[in-house]
Amino acid sequence: MQSIKWSQHWMLIFVPIALVLEHVEGIAPPIIFLVAALGIIPVARLIGASTEHLAHYTGDSIGALLNTMFGNLPEIIIGVVALKAGLYAMVAASLVGAVLFNLLFVLGLSFLLGGLKRHTLEFNVNAVRIYSTMMFIAVISLALPSIYERAFSPAGGTIEQEKINLGLVTVLIVLYALYLLYMIKTHPEEFASVGKSEANSEEHEAPWSLPMCVGVLVGSSVLAALLSEVLVGAVEGTGEALGLSSAFLGIVLLASVGGMAEGMSAIAMARKGRFDLSVGIALGSCILIALFVAPVLVFASYFVGPEPFQLAFNGGGVSLMFLAVLIGTLVVSGGSGNWYKGVQLIAVYLMIGLLLYFAPL
Amino acid sequence: MQSIKWSQHWMLIFVPIALVLEHVEGIAPPIIFLVAALGIIPVARLIGASTEHLAHYTGDSIGALLNTMFGNLPEIIIGVVALKAGLYAMVAASLVGAVLFNLLFVLGLSFLLGGLKRHTLEFNVNAVRIYSTMMFIAVISLALPSIYERAFSPAGGTIEQEKINLGLVTVLIVLYALYLLYMIKTHPEEFASVGKSEANSEEHEAPWSLPMCVGVLVGSSVLAALLSEVLVGAVEGTGEALGLSSAFLGIVLLASVGGMAEGMSAIAMARKGRFDLSVGIALGSCILIALFVAPVLVFASYFVGPEPFQLAFNGGGVSLMFLAVLIGTLVVSGGSGNWYKGVQLIAVYLMIGLLLYFAPL
Amino acid sequence: MQSIKWSQHWMLIFVPIALVLEHVEGIAPPIIFLVAALGIIPVARLIGASTEHLAHYTGDSIGALLNTMFGNLPEIIIGVVALKAGLYAMVAASLVGAVLFNLLFVLGLSFLLGGLKRHTLEFNVNAVRIYSTMMFIAVISLALPSIYERAFSPAGGTIEQEKINLGLVTVLIVLYALYLLYMIKTHPEEFASVGKSEANSEEHEAPWSLPMCVGVLVGSSVLAALLSEVLVGAVEGTGEALGLSSAFLGIVLLASVGGMAEGMSAIAMARKGRFDLSVGIALGSCILIALFVAPVLVFASYFVGPEPFQLAFNGGGVSLMFLAVLIGTLVVSGGSGNWYKGVQLIAVYLMIGLLLYFAPL
Repeated sequence: MQSIKWSQHWMLIFVPIALVLEHVEGIAPPIIFLVAALGIIPVARLIGASTEHLAHYTGDSIGALLNTMFGNLPEIIIGVVALKAGLYAMVAASLVGAVLFNLLFVLGLSFLLGGLKRHTLEFNVNAVRIYSTMMFIAVISLALPSIYERAFSPAGGTIEQEKINLGLVTVLIVLYALYLLYMIKTHPEEFASVGKSEANSEEHEAPWSLPMCVGVLVGSSVLAALLSEVLVGAVEGTGEALGLSSAFLGIVLLASVGGMAEGMSAIAMARKGRFDLSVGIALGSCILIALFVAPVLVFASYFVGPEPFQLAFNGGGVSLMFLAVLIGTLVVSGGSGNWYKGVQLIAVYLMIGLLLYFAPL
Repeated sequence: MQSIKWSQHWMLIFVPIALVLEHVEGIAPPIIFLVAALGIIPVARLIGASTEHLAHYTGDSIGALLNTMFGNLPEIIIGVVALKAGLYAMVAASLVGAVLFNLLFVLGLSFLLGGLKRHTLEFNVNAVRIYSTMMFIAVISLALPSIYERAFSPAGGTIEQEKINLGLVTVLIVLYALYLLYMIKTHPEEFASVGKSEANSEEHEAPWSLPMCVGVLVGSSVLAALLSEVLVGAVEGTGEALGLSSAFLGIVLLASVGGMAEGMSAIAMARKGRFDLSVGIALGSCILIALFVAPVLVFASYFVGPEPFQLAFNGGGVSLMFLAVLIGTLVVSGGSGNWYKGVQLIAVYLMIGLLLYFAPL
Repeated sequence: MQSIKWSQHWMLIFVPIALVLEHVEGIAPPIIFLVAALGIIPVARLIGASTEHLAHYTGDSIGALLNTMFGNLPEIIIGVVALKAGLYAMVAASLVGAVLFNLLFVLGLSFLLGGLKRHTLEFNVNAVRIYSTMMFIAVISLALPSIYERAFSPAGGTIEQEKINLGLVTVLIVLYALYLLYMIKTHPEEFASVGKSEANSEEHEAPWSLPMCVGVLVGSSVLAALLSEVLVGAVEGTGEALGLSSAFLGIVLLASVGGMAEGMSAIAMARKGRFDLSVGIALGSCILIALFVAPVLVFASYFVGPEPFQLAFNGGGVSLMFLAVLIGTLVVSGGSGNWYKGVQLIAVYLMIGLLLYFAPL
């Protein structure tokens, strides 16, 4: 009863192949990239399965939180590695890209695929209202430094910018800690599932034991992190081979790879009719990245990086984030989804991707 | 029973006068403009009447769609004629102006005049949520090229801009096609009327036959298009004679004329208590212009224009659109209207008009 | 029964001390500032108490309106005095600051302190929707001149700017007058309280007579105005002594002092569970400042100032207002509050304050 059906997971074979290919000389980067991307699919499925089984013990909200935390581990690892190498612009781009990916692509695909099976997808409107506000606060924290620069003399010293940056990320991370308190302790009912859970083939499977859930979750998260590193190593060579701009690489390709793991579980949940969990994973990832991962990387940069990493995006990046959060908020504001709302989100993601594809190299 | 009461339509006399005056030399442009504007009033009434009768056969949503399509024919004709003449800035200005006109002035007047008769005007909140999202997506598509320019070197080649432009309008028109599928086939109930339809004097009239509806609708649309061309021909001379800036001419005067036909039927519906139809016409026009008329004009420019027409507005035009869509969304978000909400929308339109009135010539 | 319990109001002793200290030479400005700030606390309590008793006679909405009008008297007095002295930038900064203070700090503290006592704070969602729209219209009126400047040649004459400015404030003040008509005459039920009023210790007190309410309200408003002037006189010296930037002084310190009176009554109402009144005071203050106080100061500048005062903020100030109104709108949009929503608002206020603290002197 407690066994994983390995027949469903034969694609795990791509994991060792990717890890080996990385160290073989002369393999073209696009091939390494493709194999590692294929390998991450079954790992993501294992993360999804273990989180789903874990949700039997914790409820959907906590389940979504755990899934988000483990699912975003790759992003933190990739970020730290890139900071060590001094690739600051790439880290900033992949943070913006991760929010766009989760909010537009993952949520859009969840609505589209879930909506092709069901007429209407219900979810908790109070929860999405909180998610929206959190995302706008994150956007404000990113917009403030550029408003500051525009309003005051641009000759302002770097030290002030650094102090402002540290102050802002401190506010963000305290806000995130209080958010967890709010979500788990004082107002869990605001995040309760409203959608009717539907019986389906996988539900017939008996729930895994708690140790098994945790073991599979941790193990597959480690694999996801390893594979993500292989992907990052190959992404630059892939870009050169295929003639892609660095903005496209950072914001679209790298961010998609980093977020693919938890993105796939969000989409899988949507297909099973568990939209509160699906929306919670997608929007929770955005919040975690903006209010937890980004501040952590800023603090980490003081220890691992050549110089402090600042959350100062140019006006273009902030505008993209703002517009994405705005459209995401509007689409989820009614507390229900359907296939067309998914199409709307994906259309905006396509338009942004199109723009970045034609960006100068 | 099936006859049109011609006593209600004596103002149609201005139609032939306008068409004749256009070809008489020495008539001052403001006079031609005035006569053509007077002529468009009864034509608009015929469009409104035929659409209303047609709604007996199709339901309010499809009725609104048909009304929108036929009511916006003048805009497309005017646009193509202006593109042929190479008046690209004027076409862009009249597109922005058409959205402002419908969203702020038409909707505002509908709420104000409908609200003077009734305490509260109910309409379908799900439908306006979809409309809002569509309008924001249109604004995003307009904002992206200027974000692109700001973020990357302005020395970027024209060819990239052209490709981006073509890509964006393709996404928009596909989104519009799927929107029709969504509205008519898969989720028509999202657009269902919620307001109670009230009996009124005109309802006592028996519904027209389907062929009669279609015949009057097509005939009066052709007249509207002819008159719109007369108005366009006279608008520049009118501006010179009255000392109006070109921005005011394009965004306010020309757009009002192009949109007067379906604007008047939206307001007429509101006065009769059919607010879902009224809101559907006003907001549907905005969406049609941004997601259908604008892309069609871009594609048409490759055949009729001296060079490709690009949907690249400067920051000012995009900001106006953004603020108008934002305030429109807020005002309709509650699913009910009243006289004061109409005043709010008209106030914003007045403020924008004031600004453009004082713009340099 | 009708007596004020003076034992609750011993802090009024700071009022005469502050008024005397102002005229004693050699007192350090921070001390004068502190004493005057301490003196304003009991005065604010009296304003709050009299407004609350007055609400027995008028209902919560009118009570909130009266409270707003009298509570904002200090702002108008301060503004006129500063205009006379030609301190135009300071007046503009304190107007922006007053909106940020009420919307983020006062409302945030109301939600936080009210939410620590109660799980959920209910209020009228229709009323906050109107408030939000009004605030966005105010932001649009501030944004339009800078859009105008960006879109057209910056060499545009000053006279046009002045005419536009006068036109915009005229629209705003007419909109405000119609808003009062709407709120009091035609649609008072849209602003009705939904929260259950709870019995509490102070309610056991018999309501004051109408003349007593009015007398205490007027008297304490005069004291608030006198103290505000002392505070303004000392604020510059306080800034120098403590090394604070002028932006911080104007937007944070001065605006907090000017708005402290009605801010404290809003917070007091929240603690007593009267959230409709609390939200009405905080958001009503924002609207009054933007749509009434600011236009009045513009008109007044033609009589008292050296030159016309223009509501033309730079892009930074408008962006701050826009982001604050956006986040405020999102937080109240659900019609309920709790401690965490208060934390969110305060966090944004802290981030803005942090930025201004590090602004160049």
